Formats: sequence, structure tokens, C-alpha cells
Amino acid sequence: MRSVSAVRSCFPASPACILKPSSAPWVDKTLLTTDTEKVATNSDIVVELIGGLEPACALVLKALDCGASVVTANKALLAKHGPELYRKAAEKNVDLYFEAAVGGAIPLIRPLRESLTGDRVTSVLGILNGTTNYILDEMTTKGLDFDVALKDAQAKGYAEADPTGDIEGEDAANKAAIVASLAFHAPVSVDDVSMEGITKITADDIAAATAEGKVVKLLAVAENDENGVSARVYPALIDAEHPLASVHGSFNAAFVHAEAADDLMFYGRGAGGAATASAVVGDIVTVAQHRVQGTAGPQVLIYNDLPMAPLSASRAPFAVRFCICDRPGILAAISKTFGDHGISINGVNQDLKPTPHDPGYSGELQTLRVVTHPCDEITLRQTVEDVCKFSFVIGEPSILRVMER
Amino acid sequence: MRSVSAVRSCFPASPACILKPSSAPWVDKTLLTTDTEKVATNSDIVVELIGGLEPACALVLKALDCGASVVTANKALLAKHGPELYRKAAEKNVDLYFEAAVGGAIPLIRPLRESLTGDRVTSVLGILNGTTNYILDEMTTKGLDFDVALKDAQAKGYAEADPTGDIEGEDAANKAAIVASLAFHAPVSVDDVSMEGITKITADDIAAATAEGKVVKLLAVAENDENGVSARVYPALIDAEHPLASVHGSFNAAFVHAEAADDLMFYGRGAGGAATASAVVGDIVTVAQHRVQGTAGPQVLIYNDLPMAPLSASRAPFAVRFCICDRPGILAAISKTFGDHGISINGVNQDLKPTPHDPGYSGELQTLRVVTHPCDEITLRQTVEDVCKFSFVIGEPSILRVMER
Repeated sequence: MRSVSAVRSCFPASPACILKPSSAPWVDKTLLTTDTEKVATNSDIVVELIGGLEPACALVLKALDCGASVVTANKALLAKHGPELYRKAAEKNVDLYFEAAVGGAIPLIRPLRESLTGDRVTSVLGILNGTTNYILDEMTTKGLDFDVALKDAQAKGYAEADPTGDIEGEDAANKAAIVASLAFHAPVSVDDVSMEGITKITADDIAAATAEGKVVKLLAVAENDENGVSARVYPALIDAEHPLASVHGSFNAAFVHAEAADDLMFYGRGAGGAATASAVVGDIVTVAQHRVQGTAGPQVLIYNDLPMAPLSASRAPFAVRFCICDRPGILAAISKTFGDHGISINGVNQDLKPTPHDPGYSGELQTLRVVTHPCDEITLRQTVEDVCKFSFVIGEPSILRVMER
Repeated sequence: MRSVSAVRSCFPASPACILKPSSAPWVDKTLLTTDTEKVATNSDIVVELIGGLEPACALVLKALDCGASVVTANKALLAKHGPELYRKAAEKNVDLYFEAAVGGAIPLIRPLRESLTGDRVTSVLGILNGTTNYILDEMTTKGLDFDVALKDAQAKGYAEADPTGDIEGEDAANKAAIVASLAFHAPVSVDDVSMEGITKITADDIAAATAEGKVVKLLAVAENDENGVSARVYPALIDAEHPLASVHGSFNAAFVHAEAADDLMFYGRGAGGAATASAVVGDIVTVAQHRVQGTAGPQVLIYNDLPMAPLSASRAPFAVRFCICDRPGILAAISKTFGDHGISINGVNQDLKPTPHDPGYSGELQTLRVVTHPCDEITLRQTVEDVCKFSFVIGEPSILRVMER
């Protein structure tokens, strides 16, 4: 083992170093380097805070291969190459810790990896993207429409200039992949994650949810049931009494169900410099302790034989909101389309107030909201696609999954 | 190191063994013993699930002294003798793990011990007693009075025949002591914890809280501020929007504030065989892994130089509910008593409906509720004591602390 003092010298030497020399006068400047090769091949602990796939992936792989332990906050890297990296760390018996990659400061990775090791996790429902949670919260409390809430979030720094990765669900999908891999020991990549963002959600959807005693949340979901493992991101209606409903603003939470432990929830700041640093430093301390002891912590075990559940296996009630140009016979036509696909309707609401959407359309627009009995998502999406072929349907419908517990 | 197979042989041999020989036919019966001395002196890992102070304390100390690692769920033991046991484990460089002792299956101990090691925890607000939370929840949702809700909880198995340890706050006080020790590295014993239970809380108190958009929860609180370290148990009014407000029934939660990580919450089943077993098995796996590696996990560090904050340093608004026999001049007399003690009153409610308390009293009883501006608890209690000297005050008042965030 190289000396532990090297940990200190290499940590601020990382190209993704959070300490600027000027802000850390106690660091000997001769130790600083931009030579990532040297950092990867000659360190006890490499802290990777570059983000993105390359050069982070090559650097982390090389560091592990050279016997360094690695602490990273890089969700994209782990969501894409996690299983490969976990195997490499296990092969070399070094640590790969990444508490900050999911849920910022929330201790979630370590409990999944260690505390629940004697239990069987069956599902994780996460609010793991602060930007979308902030936007949905603003839509709920202020009655804003999506575009307005997004602009507001951008102005306040809660959403980026290009918010696509957040609002389309990609960021949450990365986290769902990481959580599913850890919770179920399955090689789940972000490419396996089905995702639906929040861009089609309107103030009407939120108002309808509120009227039913529900809230709309973008969920990152990892499940392991008789159909196999799945990882999904979708906006869902959850009961206002559910613990996840009280996760407001930019906070994150993960609601975990395990066979023996039953329901658990982990809540906290999902992003931000200080919160992320808290998680990174916690990892560095643990990893450094293991280096001193000449050991490594428990490895992330990935088995290859768990099937991914097909999307068709995922059944739930759905709430679909169409914007329609009202005329006689519409409800009959829509009901028939649902029935033709074998989907049973649980309730319909037709809102007589004109909706403000699609200003190019001059007729009177209305909101029609259909809540189904449990059905599979593929059939539901085909049905909605067929309904959208009717000329009286205007714009994009929203599809919200109704969480049953 | 003795062989790891000894772990298995000693685990079911523990006197607090959860496996009956008949229910675990794979256990070689010759390995079973009631000789605790042999278990303590001749094991790699001792799992202590006896509960209570003795013989558990002597057994655990001897086991640690003989180089065994210990997993325990014994909150009374750790609340009373934690610092001594932590020092012994550190001295012998063995593990003492106890996830199940606080919050059942909720991973709370490990995050405090490991994940937040690079951060500075300033407070922990816990709902750590499921019995009282269930009773308060029933009082809230069904409008029951305390005695009725308690009997109901006993009938349903949520409260014990002798519920004193739960309803007077002692169980929560044990947990507050453990959490304070861990979070602040201070030698906090249950004897240092001030406690107030829920026995004086009435349906009126709950109704008043509901009307203000608040809920009543029994909190176990550990704080570290400029006045020093404190550990307290008291019923409090918390905002219905606070994440702790959504902790219902027998669930537990701990709301942690740390300087960098900001707010965190850990939620789950605080009791029950399966949930506790999940935590115990998680600990056993970790401890066994450390034995195989010939190491131990991070030790609980206790410094001796942190002062305990005096109770007088604890300032907050309070809501005090008196039951009074209405007559002219009462409000003036009560207001004057508060003023004489230097406590400023923020609001007063006098409820004209007769209260059902103290059936021995034949006059018309009313509820008078005083909400103060922030004041210290000692002065508040002296003031309430003085008010209770007036002949028009009937029975015991309730005192609820108002949480300001």
C-alpha cells in the first residue's frame, strides 16, 4: 500500500478538484497536476468529480486497474458502465464508492449496499430529480402551467438553460438504473430504463390531482417482481398521505420496500455543492479507513441471470388527459376506443371551462380526463395513440400512472 | 482469528436466540448451549438480543473483552452504558454494531456513524416510539381522548399491558441518548435526557393543533448548539407540511440536520420482529465480513469535553392548555402570572364548550389555551406551576413545545 498521505496529495490534484489552489493555501502547489494519467496510476484514492462519460470512464477504470480506490459522484458513468466498474473493483479488491451519485447528501447507496444486505429489496420509488420536483411543486402551489414554472425555475437557478436532461426524465433514469443494479444485483443500464418526462403535464392535470387528494410526482422506479427487474421513470399520481407526497421543492427521497424491513424512506437534499461534498467526504473517510486497514468494503455484486421485465408486464391504473374540441359523440368514440383495446374505464371527467392550450385553435377547447382500471402500459399507449387520431383531439395528451399504494 | 463458521454455531447458541431448535432443523443440536459464559468467551460474533441491562451488559463487555464482535438491538444497554462499551470495542479493535437499537429496520445508526462522518450534525428530531405515535395518530384521526386511544392500542397489540415506558417517554429517551452520543461524539446517558410523555395530552390539544394546521408528535431530540449538547423527549406541535408530520401509525422517522448535508430524513418500521431481524442480519453480515478481513469498521468515537446544555438554554414557543372553572378575572390572573415570569403571550384561546375531564367536578369546565413567544422551559414550567396554584385550575395542564421549523 502506498502511504495514506498520498491520498491528500492526490485528492486536490484531481482534474475535477473542488479546491482551487487560492482557496486552499495549505496545499503544496507542487503537488497539483493536470496529468490525469499520473493521478490514475499513482494514487491510493482517486476522487472523480469530472462528470460525463469520457474521460471519466477511462480514468476510473485505469485507477481501479492500478489498485486505487475510487470515490465518484458521476451518475451518468455508473448508469452506463456501473456493472463493468463494479466487477473491476471486486476483481482488484478496491473500493468504488458513490454515495453522491444518487440523491446527493442522502445516505441511500450505503444502506442499499450494506444495511439491507440481509433483506430482499422488492421496489424503490424515488423522487430523484430536484428540478422536476421543484417545477411540479410550483405548478401545484401556484397553479402555474409547465412552461411558466420552467421559466421561473430557470430564472431562480433550479433548472438549467437547457433543461432537457431533467424534464425529459434522463437524469432520473440514470439514477433508476444505478438503484436497480444495487438493489437487485442486476446489470441494469440506463439504456434499459423506459422514461417519460413531465413536459406534457398541465395545470389541469395538477388541479385534477389536487381535487382527488393526490399529488403529481416524477418517479424513478426500480422493481423486482415475478416478471423480472424493471427500471422506469414516469410521472405518477400519488396519494397526498403517502410519505413521498411531502417531498417538496428541490428535495429528493427514495421510498424503499424490502421483504423484512417493510417500508423505508430516505429524504434529503438531492443536489447542491455542500450536500454533494458531504456525501463525497463521507465516502473518502470510509475508503481511506479501508486503505489504512489494507481492506475494502463490501463489493457491489452483480449477477447476470435476472431477466428484465417486459414493459407489457407493468400494469396500473392510468389517468389520461386529452384536450378536445367539444362536439356530440366524442365521449362515445373515446370510450369505444378504450373498450376495443380491452381497457376498462373507471371514471371520466369532462371539464367545461375552456382550456388555454393550443392558442392557434379558435374553437372552444375542453379537458377530458379518463381514469382506467389497471391495464398494461403498452396497450394504454396504443389506445391513447388511437384516440389521438380523432380530429377532435388537440395537442398532446398527458399520461399519469396512478400509484395504488 | 477463530473460524467464521463459529459465527453460525454461536449465533443460535445465544441465550437470546430467535431460532428455536424445532424451527431450525439444520442446526446441529449439540452446538446449542445455555452457557452464556462460553458464548461470551469463545465466539467470533456474539448477537445479544436479551434486552435490559443485566445480564446483557456483563455478557457484552466480556465478549468484547475476549475479542468477539458484538451485534445488539439493546437500546437500554446502549443508552446507559454506550460510551463504556464503545471505548471497550475501540480498545479491542472489534465491532459493536447496533442498527436495530434505534428505529428498528431504519438505517440510521450506520449513516450517522459512517455517511455523515465528513459533516457536522447539529440536530436530530426523531419520532422513535411507535406506540406513542400510533396513539397520537388515533387521537388525531378519530378524535379520541388519550385513555381511550391507549386502551385501543393495547387491545390491538400496539401498546403493552404496562405502557409506562412508552407513554412516559422513557423508550424514546433511551434512543435520544444513543443518537446524541453518536451524532455529537458526546457521552450522553439516558440519565441526561429530560423527558415528558404524552399522558396529559387531550383530544382538545389535538383539535387545537389541527385547527392551526399542526400535528402533535412525541419527539426524541438531540441537539448540539452554542449552549452544548442536549437530549430531550417532549410532545411538540409541528407544522402539517413538515416531513415528520407524515409519519403515521407505528412508523418511526429521524429528521437530521447537518451543516453541509442540510436536512435529511430516515423513515421506516421502528419495531416488529421482521424489521428488527432485517437490521440485525445486516449488521451480522457486515461484522462477519470484517472478521474475515481481520479488521473492524469505524469505531464510535466519544470525546469527553462537550458540555451538556442546561435546560434553561432551551428556548421555544410553548402551547399550554389549562382546564379551568370559568369565572370573571381568570384571564387577567393567568396573563399576569405569565407576565410576572417575563413570558410574553402570543395568543389565547378560550373554548366555551364544556370539557369532559375530571368528572368529579360538577361546575362548568372550559379549556384555556395559551401560546407563548419563545421562552426557556424552566421558567415556563415554573409559570405553569404557579398558574396551577389558582383554585380555578382543575387537573393537569398539557405543555406542548412549538417547533419553529
